[in-house]
Amino acid sequence: MSTATRTQDAVPAISEDDIFFAHEGGKLTVESTMPLDSKRALSIAYTPGVAQVSRAIAKNPELAKTYTWASRLVVVVSDGTAVLGLGDIGAAASLPVMEGKSALFRNFAGLNSIPLVLDTTNVDEIIETLVRLRPSYGAVNLEDISAPRCFELEQRLIEALDCPVMHDDQHGTAVVCLAALTNAAKVTGRTLGQLRVVITGAGAAGIAVCEILLNAGVGDVVLVDSKGIIHRDRDDLTPVKASYAARTNRDNAVGNISDALDGADVLIGVSSSQVPESDLVRMNPDAIIFALSNPDPEVMPDVASKYAAVVATGRSDYPNQINNVLAFPGIFRGALDAGARRITPAMKIAAAQAIAGLVGDDLATDYIVPSPLDPRVADAVADAVGAASREAFAQ
Amino acid sequence: MSTATRTQDAVPAISEDDIFFAHEGGKLTVESTMPLDSKRALSIAYTPGVAQVSRAIAKNPELAKTYTWASRLVVVVSDGTAVLGLGDIGAAASLPVMEGKSALFRNFAGLNSIPLVLDTTNVDEIIETLVRLRPSYGAVNLEDISAPRCFELEQRLIEALDCPVMHDDQHGTAVVCLAALTNAAKVTGRTLGQLRVVITGAGAAGIAVCEILLNAGVGDVVLVDSKGIIHRDRDDLTPVKASYAARTNRDNAVGNISDALDGADVLIGVSSSQVPESDLVRMNPDAIIFALSNPDPEVMPDVASKYAAVVATGRSDYPNQINNVLAFPGIFRGALDAGARRITPAMKIAAAQAIAGLVGDDLATDYIVPSPLDPRVADAVADAVGAASREAFAQ
Repeated sequence: MSTATRTQDAVPAISEDDIFFAHEGGKLTVESTMPLDSKRALSIAYTPGVAQVSRAIAKNPELAKTYTWASRLVVVVSDGTAVLGLGDIGAAASLPVMEGKSALFRNFAGLNSIPLVLDTTNVDEIIETLVRLRPSYGAVNLEDISAPRCFELEQRLIEALDCPVMHDDQHGTAVVCLAALTNAAKVTGRTLGQLRVVITGAGAAGIAVCEILLNAGVGDVVLVDSKGIIHRDRDDLTPVKASYAARTNRDNAVGNISDALDGADVLIGVSSSQVPESDLVRMNPDAIIFALSNPDPEVMPDVASKYAAVVATGRSDYPNQINNVLAFPGIFRGALDAGARRITPAMKIAAAQAIAGLVGDDLATDYIVPSPLDPRVADAVADAVGAASREAFAQ
Repeated sequence: MSTATRTQDAVPAISEDDIFFAHEGGKLTVESTMPLDSKRALSIAYTPGVAQVSRAIAKNPELAKTYTWASRLVVVVSDGTAVLGLGDIGAAASLPVMEGKSALFRNFAGLNSIPLVLDTTNVDEIIETLVRLRPSYGAVNLEDISAPRCFELEQRLIEALDCPVMHDDQHGTAVVCLAALTNAAKVTGRTLGQLRVVITGAGAAGIAVCEILLNAGVGDVVLVDSKGIIHRDRDDLTPVKASYAARTNRDNAVGNISDALDGADVLIGVSSSQVPESDLVRMNPDAIIFALSNPDPEVMPDVASKYAAVVATGRSDYPNQINNVLAFPGIFRGALDAGARRITPAMKIAAAQAIAGLVGDDLATDYIVPSPLDPRVADAVADAVGAASREAFAQ
C-alpha cells in the first residue's frame, strides 16, 4: 500500500452550486445492454424472441436467475425517517441519498441497484410492498429507517423474503467498526477479548455494533443511551435494549457516560451527542476512540488524541475514516455471488476480517482501515463473504 | 423518406441460442451519471454534499422534480397475467418482456425506465403498492395485464396517482391503429366518418381501439367477441362491453363475425382467432384489413390482399407493421416533458396524427405508417402529445 492512499488529501472546495448542479436530473440512468437499432435486435430483445425466454422461465422458474436482471438487482429501500443527520424528512427528500447509494453499488461492486422510496412508515406495509415486488429484485438494502422500527422491519423482512436483506446503517457500520477495532487492538498490542468497550448511542448503529462485537468475542460492552448506561435494573428500556442489557455490562454498572468510561479501553460514539474532554480522562491508557457521528464527531480528533492511542472518525478529512462503503458493496456482491438467502453473523465477521486484513504490514495508529477508494476492498470483502456463506451451506 | 426504410428487409435467421445468449444477466443496467472515484466526487454525490439536496427537497418538495431521477422515470408494471400471446405466466416469467420494454423506453425516447413485476393479481393490492411507491417514479406504463381487470386497474390508478398512467396494450395499440387507419382511409379516398369498422376481439386492445376510433369520428364500429357481435340485447356482457354496446353498432346488428363483415369497410383483428376467407368476401370494395395478432395474424396478408386495398399486420416481415413502439415512447416523453398529470384522449389522438403525418407524400397502400426504426417518430409524437397537453391546460 502506497502512502498516497493513506494521506488525507485536501478535497478541493465544493460549492453549493457544484452540489446542486451534479444532482440535476438525478444521479442514475438505466441503459440497455444491447442497441435496439435493427429489426434483428428488436426481434431478439423484444417480440417475438423474448417469448421464448418468458416461456422457458414459466416452465422452470429457476431460469429467471440467469435470464433476467432481477437476481442481482439490489433495491435500496427507505421510508425517509432517519436520513443522514437530518431525521424524518420523508421519502421524496431521501431519494437523493438513495440514488447515491445505488450509484455506490454500481461504482464499488459492479451491481445494478435502484432506489425504492416508500410513502409509508408502517412496518407491515413496507414488508407487504416488498413481498409483492419480490420477483423484481435480488436483494434489499434498507437505508435510513429510524430505530427501533428498523430492528423489527429487518428481522421480519429476513423471514419474509428468500434473499439477502441488510439494514446498512446497522450492519455496514458494525462491520467497518469491527474491522477498525481489530486493527486498533492489534496496533496497541491487545486482543479483542481484553477490551472493555463503551458505545454511546443505542440506535440502529449502536445496537448493531454491540451485536457484532459480542459475536466477535470482545471482552465486555457497555451501551449508553440518552438516559445513561443500559443496565439490567432499568425499567424504561425498549424490548431490544432490554435484550442487550442482559448480554452486556457484565458488572451491571450504572450512571452516565462519565461513569461508563471509567476504566474503559474503547469509546465508540454513534450518538450525535458530544462527549466532554473531562470524561475521556477516565479511560485506560492506550485508549481507542471512534467518534463516528457526522459531520460533528462526539469528540474532535485533536482532543481525542490527547487521551487515545488510536482515533477514528466518519470523516474523510481525518485519518482512519470508518465509512460504510468499505463494507456494503462487497457484502451484497459476495452474498449474491454465493446465492446466499441470508447475510449471517459469520458473513459479517468475515467481511470485517477481510477489510482489516487489507491493511497488512502498513498497520499504524493512523492507518487501521483501508481508504474507501482502495480498489481492492470490494473484491476482498465479496470473496470473504461468499466463502463464509458457502462454508455455512456446506455444514 | 428513402424507400430503404419501406423495404421489408429480411432479418438474418435468429437461433434459440442467439436469443438466450442475449438475455443472459438481463437486458438492463443502472449506471451512475458521475464517476465516484475521488473524495471530491463522493463528497458531492453522497455525504456530506447530498444532505444539502435532501434538505432543500424537504423544504420544497417541488425540487424533487429537478434533483432526483424520479420525475422522469417510467415504471413498467405487470402482474404477468396476459404476457404476449402466452397468457397468465406469472410475474417472474413476464420480466424479460418488461426489461425489453424498459430498454425500448431508453432507446426510443431517451427515458429511464425500470420494470416492476408484482406477485399479486389483486387490483386493490397493485394500486396500493404503486401508491406507496409514488415518490420513486414519474409515470406508469401498465403492461400485459389481463382484461377486464386491466380496465378497472387503469381507471383507478389514473384517479389515485398524480402522474401519467397508460396501459400500453390498450392505448399504444389504439394510437397506432388510428394512425394507420387515417392513412388507409386517405390512400383509398375516404374519410374516417365514412368508414364502418369491425373489430374482432373485445379485450384490452379491442376496447381501446374502439374507444379511440369513436373519439376520432369513425362512422360506425362493430365489436365482435368470442360469442359474436356485441349488441344491446345481449345479456352476457361485462359492464365494460355493455357500455360499448350502447355506443357502437348503430344498427344493433346481431350474429357472428361473418354477419358483422357484411358491408364493412374495415376489419381490425386483435382476437388471436382466425377469420375465414369466405367471410372477407362480404366486405365492401376497397376494404382495409389490419390483422394484428402475433405471430399468427387473423388473416395472412396474401389472403387478405385478395379482398382488401390496404393490409397491415403486427409483423415486421410484412409491409405496414402496426407496432406499439411507434407510440408509447413518444407519448410518455411528451407527457413528461409537458408535466402532464394525465394522458388524455386528445393527447392520444394527437399522437396518432403525428405518426400518420410522418408518412407524408410517400403514402401508398403498402406504406401507411412509418417504420418502427424511423428515428423521427418519437420526437414527432412527443412534440404533438406535449402540445395537446399544454393546449388542454391553457383552456
